[in-house]
Amino acid sequence: MNWPEKVIFCEVGPRDGLQNEKTLLSVEQKAALIEGAADAGVPIIEVGSFVHPKAVPQMADTDEVAKKIRRLPGVEYRCLVANKKGVERALASGITKVKLTLSASESHARANMKKSIAELLEGFKECTAFAHENGAAVSGAISTAFGCPFEGKIPVAKLVEITEKFMELGITELSMSDTTGMANPRQVYDTASFMREKFPAVRWFLHFHNTRGMALANMVAGLNAGIIRYDASLAGLGGCPFAPGASGNVASEDMLHMLREMGIETGIDLDRMIALARQLQQWVGHCTDSSVLRAGKNSDLISRTEAKKQ
Amino acid sequence: MNWPEKVIFCEVGPRDGLQNEKTLLSVEQKAALIEGAADAGVPIIEVGSFVHPKAVPQMADTDEVAKKIRRLPGVEYRCLVANKKGVERALASGITKVKLTLSASESHARANMKKSIAELLEGFKECTAFAHENGAAVSGAISTAFGCPFEGKIPVAKLVEITEKFMELGITELSMSDTTGMANPRQVYDTASFMREKFPAVRWFLHFHNTRGMALANMVAGLNAGIIRYDASLAGLGGCPFAPGASGNVASEDMLHMLREMGIETGIDLDRMIALARQLQQWVGHCTDSSVLRAGKNSDLISRTEAKKQ
Repeated sequence: MNWPEKVIFCEVGPRDGLQNEKTLLSVEQKAALIEGAADAGVPIIEVGSFVHPKAVPQMADTDEVAKKIRRLPGVEYRCLVANKKGVERALASGITKVKLTLSASESHARANMKKSIAELLEGFKECTAFAHENGAAVSGAISTAFGCPFEGKIPVAKLVEITEKFMELGITELSMSDTTGMANPRQVYDTASFMREKFPAVRWFLHFHNTRGMALANMVAGLNAGIIRYDASLAGLGGCPFAPGASGNVASEDMLHMLREMGIETGIDLDRMIALARQLQQWVGHCTDSSVLRAGKNSDLISRTEAKKQ
Repeated sequence: MNWPEKVIFCEVGPRDGLQNEKTLLSVEQKAALIEGAADAGVPIIEVGSFVHPKAVPQMADTDEVAKKIRRLPGVEYRCLVANKKGVERALASGITKVKLTLSASESHARANMKKSIAELLEGFKECTAFAHENGAAVSGAISTAFGCPFEGKIPVAKLVEITEKFMELGITELSMSDTTGMANPRQVYDTASFMREKFPAVRWFLHFHNTRGMALANMVAGLNAGIIRYDASLAGLGGCPFAPGASGNVASEDMLHMLREMGIETGIDLDRMIALARQLQQWVGHCTDSSVLRAGKNSDLISRTEAKKQ
């Protein structure tokens, strides 16, 4: 098997993790989370999203959060946007990297955005042009890239088509997102290998949810396909309104723990991330899908004396 | 990446799953579990263990369970034993396949068995000779093969040494067990590839716990190293007394779901296994680490109408 020396990690907890939580975090808590991740060495952080506050009330204060955070040089602070208004808000808050998400499934696009894929792409044109004119970088994400809870399997031809549309807009950084945790390792390896070869100019991210327990298995497949950029969410927050009871994003601490055990460099302090994940779990006030928070790290060895006491 | 066409699956829930449970299942419940797994198509089932009832009270009725179960032709019903007495009990209960477990870590051997590795191996001689004389097959397991909660990393040289000892006893079916969930995919790939090449006569099993969420990732690595035999436990029961709060064995239904999604044949009816896992979860009376029990299968698609109601 082939392993990279280094993985570029993106923390999406402040956005994808919190957007489905019933408990609303304060601006201060969100800022502490983002600053904590940056201090731990995370190079890319998804700060929030500039979407309609009625659609996602959890993200209504993203402007405030973005303005409040102490920025570290070299760290990329990015936000999700859905239209030109979002880009305006991002720029006004000092965010210079925005992300546009498009579902690979027509049914999912309509359920989530109330628009067809074609309509969404049409809106992205104005949005991207405006961002580029104003010096903001734009990346893209293909959601339900590996399966849709309404439609099932997504043909790879659909991913090719959407990637081409994104590239026509001048977007060359793209994430393939397994929004509801339907990807399997064989599919990830085949799809990621194919897409990398088909679009060598694209910087690919992979974004896995752990809904059916396959997220880290999928990451292993992604690494072997040569993808080195991965999203995850502290404490495994996240989930999807269309998969009741499902786990959320794969937990950042689980991913970083696995990478450390494998000797793959991330530049991130695992212990600081674990502490941050624990804090976040307390703030949201419920258990989350994080193995490392439950069981500890491999390196937390116990002495025989401790064992006898148990 | 390389995938096999077929995986040989062993259900260890009735033994490894139940041996740490506070709730004791009845003989009838255990028999229903074992018969249910066989009816679902599981080719190998670990029925229980013949060890001292004071050491593992959960397994005290293994004799009764083994006698009670309706046997399907072609299914292997195997039990754990630790000494000659265990083999005698196995034979008296109609069990003709026994498994001997040896820890790769001296500290873990002493904590679990109150004996050194050398002393245990000495005992295995009598045990194996007696089993072979009486027509019982013997397999072996190397526990803490990928790491020990007391000692940390286990050198591969130790696995080689133990494998040689097992082979001297005429045992050529061996499992490498990640008893407390410390294995990582790179290590599994390297170790499994090396051991397969070093001991081509051995039929290898891999046995993963999902303590740090890496079990299915490790399976992907094992599959790529050419190992096709895997243990798992219905509902993800199991765990280890030395890893408080830790998850147990990887859930059978999660493993079988992943394999089905990957197009790898097991000959097992996933839906029957899911129903059995749900039943087992009710019997033990607590939540367990099973993603598929929480979130359902990939193929459980929802209609847009259902989604709107949520």
